[in-house]
Amino acid sequence: MDPQIIPVDLAKAARLLNHGPTVLVSAHHAGMDNVMAAAWACALDFTPPKLTVVLDKSTMTRELVEQSGVFGIQVPTVAQLQLTLQLGTLSRRTTPDKLERTGVELFRFPEHDMPFVNGCSAWMACKLLPEPRNQQVYDLFIGEIVAAWADSRVFSNGRWHFENAEPALRSIHHVAGGHFYAIGEAMNAPTVKSSG
Amino acid sequence: MDPQIIPVDLAKAARLLNHGPTVLVSAHHAGMDNVMAAAWACALDFTPPKLTVVLDKSTMTRELVEQSGVFGIQVPTVAQLQLTLQLGTLSRRTTPDKLERTGVELFRFPEHDMPFVNGCSAWMACKLLPEPRNQQVYDLFIGEIVAAWADSRVFSNGRWHFENAEPALRSIHHVAGGHFYAIGEAMNAPTVKSSG
Repeated sequence: MDPQIIPVDLAKAARLLNHGPTVLVSAHHAGMDNVMAAAWACALDFTPPKLTVVLDKSTMTRELVEQSGVFGIQVPTVAQLQLTLQLGTLSRRTTPDKLERTGVELFRFPEHDMPFVNGCSAWMACKLLPEPRNQQVYDLFIGEIVAAWADSRVFSNGRWHFENAEPALRSIHHVAGGHFYAIGEAMNAPTVKSSG
Repeated sequence: MDPQIIPVDLAKAARLLNHGPTVLVSAHHAGMDNVMAAAWACALDFTPPKLTVVLDKSTMTRELVEQSGVFGIQVPTVAQLQLTLQLGTLSRRTTPDKLERTGVELFRFPEHDMPFVNGCSAWMACKLLPEPRNQQVYDLFIGEIVAAWADSRVFSNGRWHFENAEPALRSIHHVAGGHFYAIGEAMNAPTVKSSG
């Protein structure tokens, strides 16, 4: 594990997804690891932190999530653009050597029995909150984030710092096909006093 | 209605949200309009296009959505950074003149009885797909996008064109407080042949 990987306070974990990055979804069951890309992932709650992710019925990763009840969500970087597209296009069902072909490097965090992708900027270990109707009708999965980590070069003190990090660490945001945007310029609006 | 506003093919409507922008949620019931900001909105399906959005129980907009069964989702721009923060901070419950105070300009599309926010880059008219358990337990609302429009200066032919539009039209991506990122540089990965 890289020394720059630091734990993220669970109260701040939703911020890893607030800005809407494309993510990688990883899972493990019965000796099999898999990873896919997902543009449709979103924060759902702060405390305890939760997220939603859409997992199509055709994907092997979904099957592993349903079987194991846990999954990983990680935020890939500009340096992983091609890897992300490959992980989102190839299916382990029809390309059994998908992981080898993409060259994805997996690792484990202690005490979490699921694979994570090396080189990402943030990682979340999630426990599936089973909602059979959502999963069946909408392919919509809800997870509680039970642990989170980030690369301290780009996320620290509960905040992203893309503006001060190397450009290769920026998050990527999928549009269609091989077309993405990197996250851009930091913007600050004067704080507004809440009305209650 | 501005002449640069064009209809978006429903088959491409999910692309308006793929890159994870912060959105504005608008609704109307019994003579009352309201608008709030939401960082937690996400595409859910392509055909028919659907989306999810998290609406806290404290918000007036949520009440209007539940009462009317319809709502608008729109993508605000860098030029609307301060407006977006205001719409996300003030509550119409405790600030009855919220809309006047923020200066938000509302308009209607023909045949859709809900307000939309002038100056955004894209607009979606949504029909609530009631899911009482999601709404009660998770504050999670599912909508079917029944019509969509975009500002042709920044979205046309089913694609965002932030890289060729004026910077003030970029989408904004909330982190926390008054802190946002604008969407950044376009990135293209070589297409990967699908394995099935």
